[in-house]
Amino acid sequence: MKKQRLFTPGPTMVPEDVLLEMARPMQHHRTGWYREMHEEVHGLLQYLFQTKAMCLTFTGSGSSAAEAAIVGCCPTGHKALVIDNGKFAERWVEVCKTFAIDHTVLSLEWGRGADANTVSSAMDADPKIDTVIVVHSETSTTALSDVAGIAGVTRDRGALLIVDGITAVGAIPVKMDEWGIDAYITGSQKALMLPPGLAFVAVSDRAWERIDSGTTPTLYNDLKAYRKSMKTFDAPYTPAVSLMRGALLVLRIIKERGLEDVWAETSLMARATRAAAAAIGIAVFAKDPVDSVTALLVPDGVAEPALRKMMREKHGFHIAGGQGEIKGKIVRFSHMGYVDAFDTLGAISAFELTLMELGYKFDVGAGVAAAQRTLAGK
Amino acid sequence: MKKQRLFTPGPTMVPEDVLLEMARPMQHHRTGWYREMHEEVHGLLQYLFQTKAMCLTFTGSGSSAAEAAIVGCCPTGHKALVIDNGKFAERWVEVCKTFAIDHTVLSLEWGRGADANTVSSAMDADPKIDTVIVVHSETSTTALSDVAGIAGVTRDRGALLIVDGITAVGAIPVKMDEWGIDAYITGSQKALMLPPGLAFVAVSDRAWERIDSGTTPTLYNDLKAYRKSMKTFDAPYTPAVSLMRGALLVLRIIKERGLEDVWAETSLMARATRAAAAAIGIAVFAKDPVDSVTALLVPDGVAEPALRKMMREKHGFHIAGGQGEIKGKIVRFSHMGYVDAFDTLGAISAFELTLMELGYKFDVGAGVAAAQRTLAGK
Repeated sequence: MKKQRLFTPGPTMVPEDVLLEMARPMQHHRTGWYREMHEEVHGLLQYLFQTKAMCLTFTGSGSSAAEAAIVGCCPTGHKALVIDNGKFAERWVEVCKTFAIDHTVLSLEWGRGADANTVSSAMDADPKIDTVIVVHSETSTTALSDVAGIAGVTRDRGALLIVDGITAVGAIPVKMDEWGIDAYITGSQKALMLPPGLAFVAVSDRAWERIDSGTTPTLYNDLKAYRKSMKTFDAPYTPAVSLMRGALLVLRIIKERGLEDVWAETSLMARATRAAAAAIGIAVFAKDPVDSVTALLVPDGVAEPALRKMMREKHGFHIAGGQGEIKGKIVRFSHMGYVDAFDTLGAISAFELTLMELGYKFDVGAGVAAAQRTLAGK
Repeated sequence: MKKQRLFTPGPTMVPEDVLLEMARPMQHHRTGWYREMHEEVHGLLQYLFQTKAMCLTFTGSGSSAAEAAIVGCCPTGHKALVIDNGKFAERWVEVCKTFAIDHTVLSLEWGRGADANTVSSAMDADPKIDTVIVVHSETSTTALSDVAGIAGVTRDRGALLIVDGITAVGAIPVKMDEWGIDAYITGSQKALMLPPGLAFVAVSDRAWERIDSGTTPTLYNDLKAYRKSMKTFDAPYTPAVSLMRGALLVLRIIKERGLEDVWAETSLMARATRAAAAAIGIAVFAKDPVDSVTALLVPDGVAEPALRKMMREKHGFHIAGGQGEIKGKIVRFSHMGYVDAFDTLGAISAFELTLMELGYKFDVGAGVAAAQRTLAGK
């Protein structure tokens, strides 16, 4: 028997019940059935984002909703500050370039998150900046930015704050209204434990004012078209009906558990993984580590491809490698969605067994033991 | 026992095997597994479009791929002729407006398709036109355009031809290379009998020359980004993995049956439905009817909402109404995908039973009998 466990930071494992829910017979979307489902999904998304703002559902990857939020919130005459600290942040810089959005890039060392002071200084240096784009949890480097702190800065200055929450929302604390975020984006295939194909964006009233002040240079990713269809809980273009069925189910599950419980469990698994790494002499890559996914440095003398291959083929744990400049240097373990403490202990055990086979010297079992102590709260 | 049968022209019914295939455990897309699947899907899409051209798969509704094709093929300095004969054609006019694409609109009576002469005359009248956008099967009016004939015109003049094949590809004859089409678009939830969420576009070499001559004003719907990722059968943004699993299965089924067989069966069901309508005194709406979906005029004295409601709630047949200016005047029956002759006979029978209950006078049974004769080839 060899079970497969998906530990990549998206797609993540999908609960069996949700897989079967999505396998139910197809139904049409221009119906009361769909509108009722969408209305319930919308209410649950508001809970997920902790907001009273309108939450829009896109058929597309997270990048579709992110593009929609950025181009909508940055019409001509406005200037964006993009915090670039990883592969996904780089993509939002690309959106600005592609749509000729006036912007300035603030590059951080990979593995670092942005904080309020950094953003404040950058805004002091360029008073034209009236929009900030930041990745809450930069999946490529597993770095956490202080979104609550940054929102304090943008609020004080009357700027808009757009947050890529793709591996944050539903995994770590996200409080859109309390913090004052203007556009919060997420995707289906991360903490929402769904297949890829849906993206969500919650849009504040302040953001809508900005959006309505300009013209939107895209049809498919036009927030206004989505807002218009929300009057009747419709969709402007044919929605991914089967994925919406799944979304309703996972969002109900999350609501029933309570977000605080989900956040606490995600954090516990991250802390257990970091404790395990420390106990076997493996360093955490990110200097500002997030709790939704952990990147560990591959030790000297161990080949990263061999490590991941053995993890996957021998032990059934599919972890991710690095991207861009840190490809080959790190491996990443997801703590999002349908994964529990014992899956995580299994991943740590498989990691130990693999490192042992690949000749890395350490106190075998120390990682699992440290993780167990963390799980036990000791 | 009351079975539900989805006769809407998208989404259409999904085969049970395909539903279960998509319910298999989630796998990651940055893997050999995904690339092999994508490569096979790509080869099967080439068969589906009858082309050697590159076929790109988008995560989105058909509108995402259509937007990508239109904005890619119409950079600054080019002018498009958009044939407007229904709701979907109108959307491509909107794309041109949104992206400030130089264009002229040729409006046809709803229910009519475009032919070579119409396009030829329009191009004579405006020599700046070097791109034609036409809907092969206009789902909203069920009108068929003569894409083969129009392609003859665009080829002769060195213009590009972009075809919305959303309810054409996999349903009625589509021969991209033989005819000389430059961008052919389709979606997953029609003849491909999948849930909505994937869109496909096949792009000719001539189209790529045009696309490469300009800059693309969108990131998410940028054909170039998709082409780049095709070198390794990857995707530029996280693809809808579960839907791709389904796509592989349905495309294999279609290939195994053979397109000619699929086209013939679709046509037979359309002809049977039209024969049935004629036999009970009901008119076909479109003057140029397509075989993928049939629109029938609701007879005087019958309320369209009551008709569809009874069809659906009493008999389990979910048919579509009209859109835009013909809302309330027609009902539409799909012949695409996972629907057979006996489903179709059932729909005709339910239609007769419903009309009878709603007080329409006709020779009860004549519709089903006429359909049977058509099915028998008599």
